[in-house]
Amino acid sequence: MVLVSVDDHVVEPPGLFDDRLPAKYVDLAPQFITNDDGTNAWLYEGQVLPNVALNAVAGRPREEYGIEPTSFDQLRPGCYDIDERVKDMDANGVLGSLCFPSFPQFCGQLFARTEDKDVALAMIRAYNDWHIDEWCGTHPGRFIPCALPAIWDPEIMAAEVRRTAAKGVHAVTFSENPSKLGWPSVHSDHWDPFWRACSEEQVVVCLHIGSSSELVITSPDAPMDCLITLTPMNIVKAATDLVWSPVLRKFPDLRVALSEGGIGWIPYFLERIDYNYDRHHLWTGQDYGNELPSEVFNRNVLTCFIDDRFGVASREFLAMDNVMWECDYPHSDSTWPTAPETLAESLGGVSDHDIDRITHLNAMHHFHYDPFTALGGKEHCTVGSLRAQVVGRGDPVAGPRRSGQAGHPGQRPGQRRFPRLTRAHVSDRETGPTPAATTGPSTAA
Amino acid sequence: MVLVSVDDHVVEPPGLFDDRLPAKYVDLAPQFITNDDGTNAWLYEGQVLPNVALNAVAGRPREEYGIEPTSFDQLRPGCYDIDERVKDMDANGVLGSLCFPSFPQFCGQLFARTEDKDVALAMIRAYNDWHIDEWCGTHPGRFIPCALPAIWDPEIMAAEVRRTAAKGVHAVTFSENPSKLGWPSVHSDHWDPFWRACSEEQVVVCLHIGSSSELVITSPDAPMDCLITLTPMNIVKAATDLVWSPVLRKFPDLRVALSEGGIGWIPYFLERIDYNYDRHHLWTGQDYGNELPSEVFNRNVLTCFIDDRFGVASREFLAMDNVMWECDYPHSDSTWPTAPETLAESLGGVSDHDIDRITHLNAMHHFHYDPFTALGGKEHCTVGSLRAQVVGRGDPVAGPRRSGQAGHPGQRPGQRRFPRLTRAHVSDRETGPTPAATTGPSTAA
Repeated sequence: MVLVSVDDHVVEPPGLFDDRLPAKYVDLAPQFITNDDGTNAWLYEGQVLPNVALNAVAGRPREEYGIEPTSFDQLRPGCYDIDERVKDMDANGVLGSLCFPSFPQFCGQLFARTEDKDVALAMIRAYNDWHIDEWCGTHPGRFIPCALPAIWDPEIMAAEVRRTAAKGVHAVTFSENPSKLGWPSVHSDHWDPFWRACSEEQVVVCLHIGSSSELVITSPDAPMDCLITLTPMNIVKAATDLVWSPVLRKFPDLRVALSEGGIGWIPYFLERIDYNYDRHHLWTGQDYGNELPSEVFNRNVLTCFIDDRFGVASREFLAMDNVMWECDYPHSDSTWPTAPETLAESLGGVSDHDIDRITHLNAMHHFHYDPFTALGGKEHCTVGSLRAQVVGRGDPVAGPRRSGQAGHPGQRPGQRRFPRLTRAHVSDRETGPTPAATTGPSTAA
Repeated sequence: MVLVSVDDHVVEPPGLFDDRLPAKYVDLAPQFITNDDGTNAWLYEGQVLPNVALNAVAGRPREEYGIEPTSFDQLRPGCYDIDERVKDMDANGVLGSLCFPSFPQFCGQLFARTEDKDVALAMIRAYNDWHIDEWCGTHPGRFIPCALPAIWDPEIMAAEVRRTAAKGVHAVTFSENPSKLGWPSVHSDHWDPFWRACSEEQVVVCLHIGSSSELVITSPDAPMDCLITLTPMNIVKAATDLVWSPVLRKFPDLRVALSEGGIGWIPYFLERIDYNYDRHHLWTGQDYGNELPSEVFNRNVLTCFIDDRFGVASREFLAMDNVMWECDYPHSDSTWPTAPETLAESLGGVSDHDIDRITHLNAMHHFHYDPFTALGGKEHCTVGSLRAQVVGRGDPVAGPRRSGQAGHPGQRPGQRRFPRLTRAHVSDRETGPTPAATTGPSTAA
């Protein structure tokens, strides 16, 4: 098994902006500070940003998941140190990783708020150069770079997309709903220069859950569990916006990823949008020509999951060239350091071809990522090969699962964790008459 | 095939309140009025309610779906006339129907706004008596009565639940999110008298989509299609609230229906809530004892669908004793008058037992509804038997489908409407350990 994760997170280290800004802007760079009480923060334009590591809980006991780490002392070094990160990836058997930003927010909103847009752009570029050259460049072949957008101006966004694409970058973050951030929606033509640049440069636009900054609050007294459940499900709104906006029809070569969006909801969604189209387009005026909305979604939209057994079981209903895997290190949903074991449980009965597409081939294809060449052959890229380099790291890796590491706490002996997902269901598919596609990104990559 | 629909709608006719109110309140009853321009409205407490028939578009061309009917002249008489309604049910092969209210809103909000709560209660009771005795009582065995709640006071709600239960009513409407209507949320103990009465009287609490009056607007310029797509998906919020609230654990005998909620999203949702529970309960404090959240959902929550092929294909992952069918007459999502044919397409490969559960047995069980006795035997209750009484009504019924009646308008010859739902998938199941039904809906109908 080879694992490429298309959604992880970097907690930015001190020194990020050193030697990356024009001299006149050096003093304006965000400063990493340690407060008297030992907590850390970033200081930018007079604002103190205390959440250095929102939800970066990898390696901590689950009882403490709700407590935000406020200093680097409370973090695994793999959150912010690139060499430690690679060792944590090795311990988890993960070959490649696409990392989203933390303190600048998903779309670089921090810099977009800067009044002097020359300064803002300098910060975005410095950040991107650090991300590309240092975070992703230190260990060649181990990272898929992902740029921040200059979101305040679509022409400048497009120019930065082209600049970073020239450096080999094929991913950029964007918002699941820019309208909620105060910018025009995807239904306008405001973003066309950005879409065009991404389409022409083959840069995937990554919409991470939560990137609209919209919290799904059902009521003031709803417990935190409601927010935890609904935040990922909010991505259905982004999918709905995309489908009914002109974007995917206007830029058929554009690829948009629903990062941390899961996959098990998608077949239902696709059936619904075709049903809605069928019944309502005559008065709403939607026109998909000879296509169906679901077909366009399946062509343009990339999807991924951490652990989604029902989604995997539903793979006949998904565009399997577009489904990818993610680890979400170091956030609380991450399966680190037992990602291979967790994923293997979901992949029972899945063909080797589909496993390869999900675990690495699709990611390699869509992000123009070629780790096998960089690492001197696929044999150096497997879970087993990577883990062999760091035996003993992340203690649950080699041994059996610790109590509380998987399964629910009150799990009874012999009880399945997902009682309704039967082996028989998976077996049915194995005996099905339609062999999986023989060509896919596997050969193209 | 026998069809019982657990979600339809009544457009209230003039005269509803006649002879049903105490003398002192007669003059306060809502008045049905015809304006000079021929439009109709209800007049109550000085407010004019022009939407006599929100979305009641049955029988109209799809080009006009977006135009709200404003007078009774524009409606099929089956919307408001009980004898005509039964004939329309016959034409569609539908035996039984649970009808939600229109102008008082799903939870009787119209009356809840009345300052004098004695008046409000008199209106609720008059409405319920009309609904039970006249709308549902005129044709015995053809309707599942569903009461309005006295939502402003949980003790009064409970009393009205018990009063109507004594008249044989086993359904009551409630909001998918009372917090959005200005009342306490389901996370409080405010509603306990209501839940207790429903639990003890075996009255199903029906949460219809849209009953929070919350419109899902992604951006000000989002096309209407986004709203159409997202309104039903909003039900996932109600499901999330229910799961993480104390309600289902406190009242294990309570049954809550997600009306017009669809089913294809549920397996993904159940997996997510168990995953969230596993990872987060140690700090959020949720306690399901020896159960999983999904198990409680599957015990307490009833689900239904109009046309949801992926949901049917996912039936191994659903609590099949709780899945029901609905027609949604006369709303725009309704499959009238070709419901049996549309449903049959979704039910290919499904066992007779599962078909019977979905189409009528589950509804009969949960709503204590016994049409077979009332109509003198099951043989008088089938699609074929009912349709034979009204040959020629609803022209598409007997013949082949009209162009535009099903499939999308640009459909190419030989193109499947749901390209990813393959026959192979269904066939897999047929060759599985459980032999598929040898008789399908086509023969049963």
